[in-house]
Amino acid sequence: MARDECVIGIDFGTLSGRAVVVRVRDGAELGSAVHDYAHAVVERELPETGERLPPDWALQDPGDYIDVLRTAVPDALKAAGVAPDAVIGIATDFTASTPMPVLSDGTPLCRVEDLAARPHAYPKLWKHHAAQRQADRINALAEERGEPWLARYGGRISSEWEFAKALQVLEEDPDVYDRMERWIEGADWIIWQLCGEETRNACTAGYKAIFQDGRYPSEEFLAALDERFAGFVADKVAGPPLLQLGSRAGSLTARAGAWTGLPEGIAVATGNVDAHVTAPAAQAIEPGQMLAVMGTSTCHIMNDEALAEVPGMCGVVRGGITPDLWGYEAGQSGVGDIFAWFVDNAVPPRYHEQARERGLDVHGLLSQLAEDQDVGEHGLIALDWHSGNRSVLVDHELTGVLVGLKLSTRPEDVYRALIEATAFGTRKIIETFDDAGIAVRELFVAGGLMRNRAIMQIYADVTRHSLHLIGSEQGPALGAAMHAAVAAGAYPDIHAASEAMGSVRRDVYRPDEARADAYDALYERYSVLHDHFGPGGDDVMHALRRLRPRERVRD
Amino acid sequence: MARDECVIGIDFGTLSGRAVVVRVRDGAELGSAVHDYAHAVVERELPETGERLPPDWALQDPGDYIDVLRTAVPDALKAAGVAPDAVIGIATDFTASTPMPVLSDGTPLCRVEDLAARPHAYPKLWKHHAAQRQADRINALAEERGEPWLARYGGRISSEWEFAKALQVLEEDPDVYDRMERWIEGADWIIWQLCGEETRNACTAGYKAIFQDGRYPSEEFLAALDERFAGFVADKVAGPPLLQLGSRAGSLTARAGAWTGLPEGIAVATGNVDAHVTAPAAQAIEPGQMLAVMGTSTCHIMNDEALAEVPGMCGVVRGGITPDLWGYEAGQSGVGDIFAWFVDNAVPPRYHEQARERGLDVHGLLSQLAEDQDVGEHGLIALDWHSGNRSVLVDHELTGVLVGLKLSTRPEDVYRALIEATAFGTRKIIETFDDAGIAVRELFVAGGLMRNRAIMQIYADVTRHSLHLIGSEQGPALGAAMHAAVAAGAYPDIHAASEAMGSVRRDVYRPDEARADAYDALYERYSVLHDHFGPGGDDVMHALRRLRPRERVRD
Repeated sequence: MARDECVIGIDFGTLSGRAVVVRVRDGAELGSAVHDYAHAVVERELPETGERLPPDWALQDPGDYIDVLRTAVPDALKAAGVAPDAVIGIATDFTASTPMPVLSDGTPLCRVEDLAARPHAYPKLWKHHAAQRQADRINALAEERGEPWLARYGGRISSEWEFAKALQVLEEDPDVYDRMERWIEGADWIIWQLCGEETRNACTAGYKAIFQDGRYPSEEFLAALDERFAGFVADKVAGPPLLQLGSRAGSLTARAGAWTGLPEGIAVATGNVDAHVTAPAAQAIEPGQMLAVMGTSTCHIMNDEALAEVPGMCGVVRGGITPDLWGYEAGQSGVGDIFAWFVDNAVPPRYHEQARERGLDVHGLLSQLAEDQDVGEHGLIALDWHSGNRSVLVDHELTGVLVGLKLSTRPEDVYRALIEATAFGTRKIIETFDDAGIAVRELFVAGGLMRNRAIMQIYADVTRHSLHLIGSEQGPALGAAMHAAVAAGAYPDIHAASEAMGSVRRDVYRPDEARADAYDALYERYSVLHDHFGPGGDDVMHALRRLRPRERVRD
Repeated sequence: MARDECVIGIDFGTLSGRAVVVRVRDGAELGSAVHDYAHAVVERELPETGERLPPDWALQDPGDYIDVLRTAVPDALKAAGVAPDAVIGIATDFTASTPMPVLSDGTPLCRVEDLAARPHAYPKLWKHHAAQRQADRINALAEERGEPWLARYGGRISSEWEFAKALQVLEEDPDVYDRMERWIEGADWIIWQLCGEETRNACTAGYKAIFQDGRYPSEEFLAALDERFAGFVADKVAGPPLLQLGSRAGSLTARAGAWTGLPEGIAVATGNVDAHVTAPAAQAIEPGQMLAVMGTSTCHIMNDEALAEVPGMCGVVRGGITPDLWGYEAGQSGVGDIFAWFVDNAVPPRYHEQARERGLDVHGLLSQLAEDQDVGEHGLIALDWHSGNRSVLVDHELTGVLVGLKLSTRPEDVYRALIEATAFGTRKIIETFDDAGIAVRELFVAGGLMRNRAIMQIYADVTRHSLHLIGSEQGPALGAAMHAAVAAGAYPDIHAASEAMGSVRRDVYRPDEARADAYDALYERYSVLHDHFGPGGDDVMHALRRLRPRERVRD
């Protein structure tokens, strides 16, 4: 390959899109640019009409995605000082599941004039949680019918995924449902816009659209949910090629070339997902290498050769991370957002002042104060279920717990206990994988929390794993760029691309034996609380939800 | 009686002493004055030498008590505009157990020149908690020997009481122990200073010195604790008359007359204790009338005709509140101090700002915000064990719990949950009394927390009791003044004095049926948690204490 060939990776996040220009030879990130979505997340009212949205809705405007192509890509090229004709391929990653209703030519339904005022005509962002009722019915029916695919998702289909959201459209706005000709992930729609052809990627098809062992859920199953839903897969989902990650979806169209300033005809890679695409960027795609993408929540991604049913996992998908292996996903619903909640709601003024004096933010101050403590010194144990528990209990109605409060308990004590709780939660996931025969041999970390030294050391000590940290600050976009390089033929597969272009700092945090021993004793206690308030024992958390006066429930 | 006769009641608190001049005829409070102790609570170092005290110590300087007589009494007379010769009697109440070593003439050992540098020569304030080891041994031995008095104290003698503290003196400074000729409660020592004669009162003898059925613990028991302790009762405690509350201990000496500006020879009542003396001031001394004195902690006081063993009570003493009945005491270790801890450690800046804007303190703001909530709205349950649980579990190693935390949980939610937890704790005590056959028929409240409307309404709703609030802001001093009136012969007994001089506002807060029903369901859940983390189930709280690294334990 020529020494100056480049690829572009674009990371479509929740609030913005980031384009990065990456050198094919070695993965050097030559320049990047960010474009904030003008409509951000539409949660309160529909901009078009001012109509108030019901609780738990979260929409987006697809025009914002196109604007990323129009602005961030040329800006990144400029920042990199790279001539457009050096670019041999382009790839993306996207939030998921973020499905949208479109016409058969790809036009979003919300751009069809008489439908612009209809909330259901817009993309439903991953954090649209208003289809829980539909998800409950899907799960109940799947269990009743013994659908074989249910176990591939830890026994539970999420309200965030394609089927629950589509069923909500059908039930709440059947006209929009009838008029939508395709129901497509943003991850695939953006590729359609780039190469002019509708495709589906193996990752979202598997994790979000229940595509297992070569098929989607059966027509009989769909009909049993709702007669009108029987043809959903056949009519609106299936049909176009279902492509492996890193394959070439097509070539850049003239129109997309005009948007981006890139040459018509370069390779466009198949769609991909933010967490999964990060694994090759962190060189964490071999069997047994678990990547934890730690931000507001944590997503755990791991390849293995074997297929197993891991209790409480989010999903296992053949080719879900790389085409040749089974890709496992697990998750912790709340991590960074629990720390943020704590700082916003439970830290007194003197800590804010002290942080200012030391030139730190409050997280920084609390981390410093917490870092010096011995294991067990604060005498607390927390359960990190402030937004429920995804893996391994799969129960979003669970809630957070603090045990051990004393009049001498200080904010940094609770802060540390909350960090430890999330670390215990990660250990619980790792042990569950190990017990299911999918051994976690190495632990990699990406995401914003990897910059917090206190958190990282606690995770190393609690899990007894050395932590390998991704070398890039722009993991998802870098991972996307690697797939672009593969799609363009610069590397034979993603393993080769990852080896050449990825970067990881190995063993940045190593477990301390004494602290790890001390944590074993605390983890044992955590597990007792976990099992008591989770699957068995005291169902007080559900009871507290039931006992809330209906009209004043706030979440 | 002459229409203008007065009595003086003096309340010796933890940080100050308050004298109140009270009209005998109707209990009108004519004037009062406060004197702050110059030495406050001696917890860190001995003022005499600067010697650092060990953890959990709390001493006082007896000179501060005399200064109250010298300053607060004349100031109160002046404030009342009452001539000294209108005063017919004086009485006191005191913190307890606050024992001190003295010579046979009443001289505190810390005033003996060569002992002023010895920490054990000073009074040990009620909250001196450094004699836990001794208390543990007393309890173990009492249980082993089947001492009949143990059941009178809910099965557990406190480290705060006279025997544990005296044993600590013996073991840690045998020389001071040998040279102390009397071991006496501050409650009795101050009476000695007023009337020149050593007496003991039935209240502290019963609740704090294990005086039951006419005797103290036996010489055999004491010898089994420590050979050198065998003569403790005979040599240093017993001897002087053990007087009923409201009896006349003696007459004011010329010396005390000079201190106070009061006429020599007026009646001095027997010593008394702050919580117990408040009951007649609140007209809460008939059987079945429970008084909750609610401040940093809560003390529950109730008379009954019957003797019963109530699990977890602090004590039952014949004549402990009034001479004619069995006086029961129970307690919650942490109440107001839990709310104070929360405000100091867990309320973010914007609440402090909002409080300032509204001209409230943070408690006031949180109470206002919490007050409007429906029962169960916040979805939380707390256990109020931040400084352990006195009644009914008698376990000071228990710790606080919060269940139900969500990312939407706000400070006022937790604040309300903590208030509710203390109310549930009170209900647990009431139910335990009821179950033991000592029926709680009415609930009276005194103490600083009665001014908080949100707290009071929650207590009414949780307990299904109307709350009767003491009419006086100076309950203990008023109660003491009543005993002075009885001792001076103005009333035949404390019942008559209470009826004439006490004041109570009845039914200030009434339970709301709907809210009470809703609380029943939450209380049921509280009880499950209570029993799980308390007597049985998960001993995680003790485990967390054991797992703390020893050298860094902070409390």
